[in-house]
Amino acid sequence: MTLLDERLTPQGPARPQLRAGILGATGAVGQKFVEILADHPWFKITALAASERSAGQRYREAARWIGSAPIPRAVADMKVVPLRDNLDCDFVFSGLSARVAGEAERMFAAAGYPVISNARNYRMKEDVPLLIPEINPDHTALVHNQCWDRGGYIVTNPNCSTVGLVCALKPLQDAFGVDAVQVTTLQALSGAGHPGVSSLDALGNVVPFIGGEEDKIATEPGKILGMLAGGRIEHATMAISAQCNRVPVLEGHLACVSVKLRRRTRLGEVRSAFAAFASPISDYNLPSAPRSLLHIFDEAHAPQPRRHVYLEGGMGVGIGRLRACEVLDYKFVVLVHNTVRGAAGGAVLNAELLVRQGLLLPQREAALVAAS
Amino acid sequence: MTLLDERLTPQGPARPQLRAGILGATGAVGQKFVEILADHPWFKITALAASERSAGQRYREAARWIGSAPIPRAVADMKVVPLRDNLDCDFVFSGLSARVAGEAERMFAAAGYPVISNARNYRMKEDVPLLIPEINPDHTALVHNQCWDRGGYIVTNPNCSTVGLVCALKPLQDAFGVDAVQVTTLQALSGAGHPGVSSLDALGNVVPFIGGEEDKIATEPGKILGMLAGGRIEHATMAISAQCNRVPVLEGHLACVSVKLRRRTRLGEVRSAFAAFASPISDYNLPSAPRSLLHIFDEAHAPQPRRHVYLEGGMGVGIGRLRACEVLDYKFVVLVHNTVRGAAGGAVLNAELLVRQGLLLPQREAALVAAS
Amino acid sequence: MTLLDERLTPQGPARPQLRAGILGATGAVGQKFVEILADHPWFKITALAASERSAGQRYREAARWIGSAPIPRAVADMKVVPLRDNLDCDFVFSGLSARVAGEAERMFAAAGYPVISNARNYRMKEDVPLLIPEINPDHTALVHNQCWDRGGYIVTNPNCSTVGLVCALKPLQDAFGVDAVQVTTLQALSGAGHPGVSSLDALGNVVPFIGGEEDKIATEPGKILGMLAGGRIEHATMAISAQCNRVPVLEGHLACVSVKLRRRTRLGEVRSAFAAFASPISDYNLPSAPRSLLHIFDEAHAPQPRRHVYLEGGMGVGIGRLRACEVLDYKFVVLVHNTVRGAAGGAVLNAELLVRQGLLLPQREAALVAAS
Amino acid sequence: MTLLDERLTPQGPARPQLRAGILGATGAVGQKFVEILADHPWFKITALAASERSAGQRYREAARWIGSAPIPRAVADMKVVPLRDNLDCDFVFSGLSARVAGEAERMFAAAGYPVISNARNYRMKEDVPLLIPEINPDHTALVHNQCWDRGGYIVTNPNCSTVGLVCALKPLQDAFGVDAVQVTTLQALSGAGHPGVSSLDALGNVVPFIGGEEDKIATEPGKILGMLAGGRIEHATMAISAQCNRVPVLEGHLACVSVKLRRRTRLGEVRSAFAAFASPISDYNLPSAPRSLLHIFDEAHAPQPRRHVYLEGGMGVGIGRLRACEVLDYKFVVLVHNTVRGAAGGAVLNAELLVRQGLLLPQREAALVAAS
Repeated sequence: MTLLDERLTPQGPARPQLRAGILGATGAVGQKFVEILADHPWFKITALAASERSAGQRYREAARWIGSAPIPRAVADMKVVPLRDNLDCDFVFSGLSARVAGEAERMFAAAGYPVISNARNYRMKEDVPLLIPEINPDHTALVHNQCWDRGGYIVTNPNCSTVGLVCALKPLQDAFGVDAVQVTTLQALSGAGHPGVSSLDALGNVVPFIGGEEDKIATEPGKILGMLAGGRIEHATMAISAQCNRVPVLEGHLACVSVKLRRRTRLGEVRSAFAAFASPISDYNLPSAPRSLLHIFDEAHAPQPRRHVYLEGGMGVGIGRLRACEVLDYKFVVLVHNTVRGAAGGAVLNAELLVRQGLLLPQREAALVAAS
Repeated sequence: MTLLDERLTPQGPARPQLRAGILGATGAVGQKFVEILADHPWFKITALAASERSAGQRYREAARWIGSAPIPRAVADMKVVPLRDNLDCDFVFSGLSARVAGEAERMFAAAGYPVISNARNYRMKEDVPLLIPEINPDHTALVHNQCWDRGGYIVTNPNCSTVGLVCALKPLQDAFGVDAVQVTTLQALSGAGHPGVSSLDALGNVVPFIGGEEDKIATEPGKILGMLAGGRIEHATMAISAQCNRVPVLEGHLACVSVKLRRRTRLGEVRSAFAAFASPISDYNLPSAPRSLLHIFDEAHAPQPRRHVYLEGGMGVGIGRLRACEVLDYKFVVLVHNTVRGAAGGAVLNAELLVRQGLLLPQREAALVAAS
Repeated sequence: MTLLDERLTPQGPARPQLRAGILGATGAVGQKFVEILADHPWFKITALAASERSAGQRYREAARWIGSAPIPRAVADMKVVPLRDNLDCDFVFSGLSARVAGEAERMFAAAGYPVISNARNYRMKEDVPLLIPEINPDHTALVHNQCWDRGGYIVTNPNCSTVGLVCALKPLQDAFGVDAVQVTTLQALSGAGHPGVSSLDALGNVVPFIGGEEDKIATEPGKILGMLAGGRIEHATMAISAQCNRVPVLEGHLACVSVKLRRRTRLGEVRSAFAAFASPISDYNLPSAPRSLLHIFDEAHAPQPRRHVYLEGGMGVGIGRLRACEVLDYKFVVLVHNTVRGAAGGAVLNAELLVRQGLLLPQREAALVAAS
Repeated sequence: MTLLDERLTPQGPARPQLRAGILGATGAVGQKFVEILADHPWFKITALAASERSAGQRYREAARWIGSAPIPRAVADMKVVPLRDNLDCDFVFSGLSARVAGEAERMFAAAGYPVISNARNYRMKEDVPLLIPEINPDHTALVHNQCWDRGGYIVTNPNCSTVGLVCALKPLQDAFGVDAVQVTTLQALSGAGHPGVSSLDALGNVVPFIGGEEDKIATEPGKILGMLAGGRIEHATMAISAQCNRVPVLEGHLACVSVKLRRRTRLGEVRSAFAAFASPISDYNLPSAPRSLLHIFDEAHAPQPRRHVYLEGGMGVGIGRLRACEVLDYKFVVLVHNTVRGAAGGAVLNAELLVRQGLLLPQREAALVAAS
């Protein structure tokens, strides 16, 4: 338990907020970071960085705001700064697009910033944690393998569709082992950002293809569900086949999943495994953590994106329609909020985990720790 | 070759149209029958039957018309008659709901009418053909097993989601054998009829459940792909697991399919099997038959309901995104027009097949045949 | 200032909550009442009444719940009771449909219950207040004209489209006088209740007709903006022409308004009149009252239903695109949340107003007042 | 009657097709031209011109095809050429965006090409006809005022929302005079082209603003309904106030219109004026002309975009809900297909009119005429 950790316990003495920068602050993910961090008890936005085109403008002018609530007051008049490594903050969230995230995140890590990234670029890199705090909180140890001189590091959260799937697979993996997974996703438009999908392609239509998505779903779960051993991740081995569709839904990725388990199991046991899942970090009291990660629906028509996507403020995962599968063993439906749990909210939870683990500190303290 | 058959060849002499009745004429499927039969070269609507509530009114008043084209002129002012077995027609199409179809269709068959039904009630009955003319045209022979005194019989078409799936499975079954099928459907709202799904449940949402649908998809293909032997159908054996979703699309059921084949096959062979599929009834020149049943899309984003559902006037089936599956063998996407090929259009094609096979005749001739 | 009033001041001593019944509790409006009252500081649901069909069931079974948040815990297991005048509560909210509201509300008023109704039946009755608390709070005095023996009365809130329009007209009427109003509405699907509009009619479509709506918009504003004089309302005289459309939006009625003012005015004066509007009841500190009723948007693309409907928790009214009109004088756009401000939320605010005015009391005190 | 005219009569001798070029062939409007001209009896596409970026590619590669029918075979493999004035064709259709249309259309006119434009740039220019063939066919005479040396000229069709409105106003203007018009539009997404409106802005939403649209609706009708006198147009004088909204509809602009007439009129007379409208060019037998321009709906729920937009193949105009207006005189609803009648289809009809009037000729003959 670190110094900071102590101070963060509810009962502890007053503590300073950590100063957060947002990379790609004007984009769709960046805006969601701004929204989620507006009233955050631990983090305070002190830097908004974006492309040269936006730099110099006030945030309210630079961002074509797409949220339904207004721009948080504290941020609306902040100046947007360029993507340079002299941001006034203790760490950065990255909502950058994959096109620029590779270089930019490397630059910030090298400059000593912890980078909490939503981009895909470093997710599968061996020494970069691919985190879901309730699933693999110990994987943060990988940051010690990263070789940046000045205390910086990169951690990532998974693809928005991967998150829900992995949360549902975890209890099955632990209890029975998972051999194979068939998953068909029905993904919301917000997953493509703004402007993203043209309304002429979306309205009353399904697009049965999302570039790169099926690969991510096939590969990321193995790493997340993998075992940390000897300082590295041994990937879980399971065959995953994904078919991804874009549907005219605003928020909420639904996945129809079918699994083959390692050992013979009864339906009731599967339901019990879901219901019994307990987060290993529940005693950390992270502000963004759902009270309960998995919500099991027994009624036939649930979960539905529009009705249930805000489970636990968008940080919960809905599971429904559990039943036997005629081809593999069991099938069920998973719902996850793609821009909250599947993107910005997941990244914020990652940062909270790192705080509790003593890996995210005010820069001055970080400097002291590094020096000691 | 029958007498009638001869007269129907394009080169043959002029022939009388067959007089068709429509059961459930005011409902969503009934309306589609009216629309499709408006300019039909062989069939002419002479009777519109519906519930007592509608009977006696003119069709334009009784039907809450939902089509985008106006009510065909020839039908708009016809009187709707009650569901009694004295309809003035040579045969009937049934667009009745399952709740009333069981009794009503039996009554009409017993009264000597050929009943071309879209309802689910008799689909799995041993002596009732479950027909897709391009797939199992020989199954019509089953009608000879039906024991109605006066020449009536019942034939059925499959569930709207089953149709597309079976059309795609047929060439694979013939070439390689199909062992197992995983299918997730994204089904259009029109499949639920009118008023059907509430707009508050549909807009921007997915409902991951459609009552009874998964069972139909699991069981109907085995019968359709079965072998006629000794006057009965030996069902094809393959495991089918379906997950059905209602999506905010107007027309067109999309299915994400994954198959396990009986023998080891290369991707190119699978594509070739699809491309080489030839309808066994192409020389029948049925008016509603597509020139080509299967349309293979090689571009990544196709097929899409809104763009491709009217392939071949809605009678074609789109197949796309063929690729290897990490769990079973191959996966692909199938699109079918649910209210045309999957309902009224499929039934009309069934009737056309029966005409060609000499099983559907003007009543007077039918009486002669029966007497001879 | 009444006894009760005193106790309700924030600084005052603890006070008992009033016990509220909900008539039509299982319908769409009834559900919204349940949702809004879940955490209400003054009101507590003690009775849920609905048709005989629902009576006797637990609320969670009787209501086909359409909300996106779950059924409030305190209510989910309450028994639904029939619509009889022996409800265990101090007053009732009515979310009944117009078909049954007439008789039922009369019965409850006669039995001594204050009836806070959202139904249209008594809105235009001379002695029934048609209330928007920020616009005509003094109109509650009309209840003294109602002749129910045992202390009951009826108050109503306006049609969901009328509300937004009247809120926008009020400052203009006060400052310049309003001569004529042209209004075209684009109304959300939730205004039609559940199941309401069929998805086949709604998706990608506009229905340019809503039964009875145009009349309500033409007649209700005159009463609401009328002057209370000598115990009765002198209706404001202004010509109003409405064209109503149903659009595929879930929540939020948008209205395109054009007004002819009584006196010549400059655009800046009109904007100032909107901006300067101050609620006459702001010092009542009603829990559901918005801090600011009118929100003026200066950017061209606002307000939009999906982005701005939750202004002030759905109790604010958005005004945008103010500009000169080539035919009348000025035109602008108004947005109102149809099921919150325009229905259940408006009714709850009405009840809060009545509490502050000493017109809504615990039954025992009401009995004392009546006896005195 | 011109030479050409004679040859074009159905009874006349065989005639060569005119060779059409399309400017901006890969855009949304250009694609609609391609679709409409696929089977045109008089015109044959011989040149597809687009920006440098597309030039050199085959049309099937250059155009991101958004139509629901496949790319017409005859065009799919044509090479796209750059926007230079040496196109191999007798005249050009312009589907260019306003950004480039100004310069490009001038260049083509100067080079001797008749330019049939859908762009807004020259619509209000004094010597450029702004045409709706059924409304002001004589306005084509303006081309004689244009001063291009080599026989080229420019004609335009109105904004997609203007078209429907003007078609409805014409009979009223002729019979009673129109003094003032209030119009609120509910416009389809396809009016913004592809990609156009982001699905995140469109789905379940209304955007109450369309840049430049209200001005066009206010100004274009005066010119179209104006009188040709002394070789120039005397604009009709009527005040028009427009409020424009983008709604989640794919095709079909709906307008809620209210009119003040010059002389006192009864409702029946207004209806009769609509019903009696006869196209002045009906005896021209133009291939794209609707049999009847105006379709009057008497049922309350019509016209609706999704049900009625394909009236007369998209070239008809629907009028419904005619009734008295409480502020002006009468109000009604108008529906027009925005990409057919309101864009490409309207332009093709303009070209057909010009052919009949002898103003559009094969280049060789045109050269002869010019020389004579």
